[in-house]
Amino acid sequence: MEQPAALERLLGNTSTISDLSRQMRRRGVRNVRIVGHGSSDNASSFGIYAFGLLPGWTALRDSISLSVYYGAELDYRESVVLALSQSGRTADVIAYVERARQRGAFTVALTNDVESPLSAACEAVLPLAAGEERSIAATKTYTNQVAALVLLAAFAGGVGEEYVTGIRETAALLDAWLPRIESEVASLTDVLTVIERMFVVGRGPEYATAREISLKLLETCRLAAEPMTATALAHGPVAALDASFPVWAIADDGPSLPAVLEAASRARRAGSIVVASGPGGSQIPGAAFLLPVPEPPLGLLGPILSVVPGQVVAWSLSRAKSLDPDRPAGLSKVTCAA
Amino acid sequence: MEQPAALERLLGNTSTISDLSRQMRRRGVRNVRIVGHGSSDNASSFGIYAFGLLPGWTALRDSISLSVYYGAELDYRESVVLALSQSGRTADVIAYVERARQRGAFTVALTNDVESPLSAACEAVLPLAAGEERSIAATKTYTNQVAALVLLAAFAGGVGEEYVTGIRETAALLDAWLPRIESEVASLTDVLTVIERMFVVGRGPEYATAREISLKLLETCRLAAEPMTATALAHGPVAALDASFPVWAIADDGPSLPAVLEAASRARRAGSIVVASGPGGSQIPGAAFLLPVPEPPLGLLGPILSVVPGQVVAWSLSRAKSLDPDRPAGLSKVTCAA
Repeated sequence: MEQPAALERLLGNTSTISDLSRQMRRRGVRNVRIVGHGSSDNASSFGIYAFGLLPGWTALRDSISLSVYYGAELDYRESVVLALSQSGRTADVIAYVERARQRGAFTVALTNDVESPLSAACEAVLPLAAGEERSIAATKTYTNQVAALVLLAAFAGGVGEEYVTGIRETAALLDAWLPRIESEVASLTDVLTVIERMFVVGRGPEYATAREISLKLLETCRLAAEPMTATALAHGPVAALDASFPVWAIADDGPSLPAVLEAASRARRAGSIVVASGPGGSQIPGAAFLLPVPEPPLGLLGPILSVVPGQVVAWSLSRAKSLDPDRPAGLSKVTCAA
Repeated sequence: MEQPAALERLLGNTSTISDLSRQMRRRGVRNVRIVGHGSSDNASSFGIYAFGLLPGWTALRDSISLSVYYGAELDYRESVVLALSQSGRTADVIAYVERARQRGAFTVALTNDVESPLSAACEAVLPLAAGEERSIAATKTYTNQVAALVLLAAFAGGVGEEYVTGIRETAALLDAWLPRIESEVASLTDVLTVIERMFVVGRGPEYATAREISLKLLETCRLAAEPMTATALAHGPVAALDASFPVWAIADDGPSLPAVLEAASRARRAGSIVVASGPGGSQIPGAAFLLPVPEPPLGLLGPILSVVPGQVVAWSLSRAKSLDPDRPAGLSKVTCAA
């Protein structure tokens, strides 16, 4: 519910973001190395598209383990590191940043806590300004990470102001339409209480959404939801589907749409219940449940909207299963690397 | 069973591999872009470690969709593209290669079919020489892809001959020890017939193994097996575990071992059955099932051995469930992009 306000707070940092993008260009960035765990890593999947499509830069979810635990001697010059951590206290993200900075990377912390050890370890800080996450499962931090990544990419690609306006409009859309989602999830929640496993399919920028919805269902509802690109579903996993194995398909109106429609059709033919969501969700044929979101003002902003039905379903399902969505079993807020 | 012989055939192409690595160095490669779907994409996860640790190059599983469907204008100069496709007929891998080659990448096909459209589209070909895959689920192609990636990386890093010898020794180890695995999987297979969902945990170079074992269990046994790094398990998914949700942990003796041991311990505390495998499998405490593999002659060669127990379990479980491991429901050999 606080997501629209959190997006507005992030927009208050626009001049910082614009300045960071200028520094990235000035330093001749060729590779954007995004690091983080859990929801932060899911947001990184979105960053690959934002940087690939706006400034045309190669972005990767860089391996923390390769650098920190295996000691790989990569060339970090001409790289920017975007280090994502809600708390700014994730130990191996900090260790990664220290290593990369010593070796010439431009390091930027994207965190809610500007006083955190991660902020201190990085050359620059982009405050996410999502506000306090009282539950363990982050929600508004995720949407603000997605928004921060697209703004950095947009300013680097010379279209920053357009995206500032776009995010402001997206926040307003979300605010107007949040109450409606809450009223729409009840029947889906009933069905999901008896479901043990599920695929969540997305593609392109919405693959990040599929990952984040899966993680929320897994950690708060104990539902074995596995994210998958629409293409990967066809390469083997489709063979596992049946009536007790639903597929949640997230569609937008972009170049991904045909692959997502095809994946949903194959799931239907295998007997799966199909849940359709995303800005293009209403185009998915044969869906038993439809949780659409409005068309975003700019295509790349769809993921800010389309993750929300998943968050609401996870909250509702968790309560229906008598679990505590804010305190999943065996988890703590700051996850320390083993 | 043919995997040792297939590895020997690949070693017959050592001079081609050495020459390709020289060309990569000469062309000033900075980014290694690995592309493929399904098992080929799983092998790519290994490639990130092979190139990161041997020549110290940044390798990434590049997004086919970002380039081919979204038309991102990335800078492919100073990039080598390693295009992995068993058949050499995967349409969007070919489309990716054509685009990247026009924009300055050095393109190499890694395929069994040197006469395939993918081979024709690339500037160079590394014949995988795995031989005919009669089943849809690739096995020896996967191990040869892993071996080919490590050889390319090793020659680029100036340690090619050491790895040629290492792979020859690994093939001999595998040959000697294959009959033993077959006799060891029976009791695990019995238990897995009643299991619907599972995590397969690996880290570092063995994360590729976790992905490949998961895919085999999913496509041939209809078991919802999800691959996960040992670190990711702690970031949420551990909350979903219980006695009916086993964890298969793949351990080697490298820097990943502590994280994998910790993940296995957390799984045990949550009540999960733990299956331990990999060269370090015997170090995992509290495992209900142990499917160890011998210590490889070089640490990076572990994944060639550790995938095999997973392949054998998938074959055995598929038959126990009266499924056809060679013809999973709804799949065809060449997967076309939607």
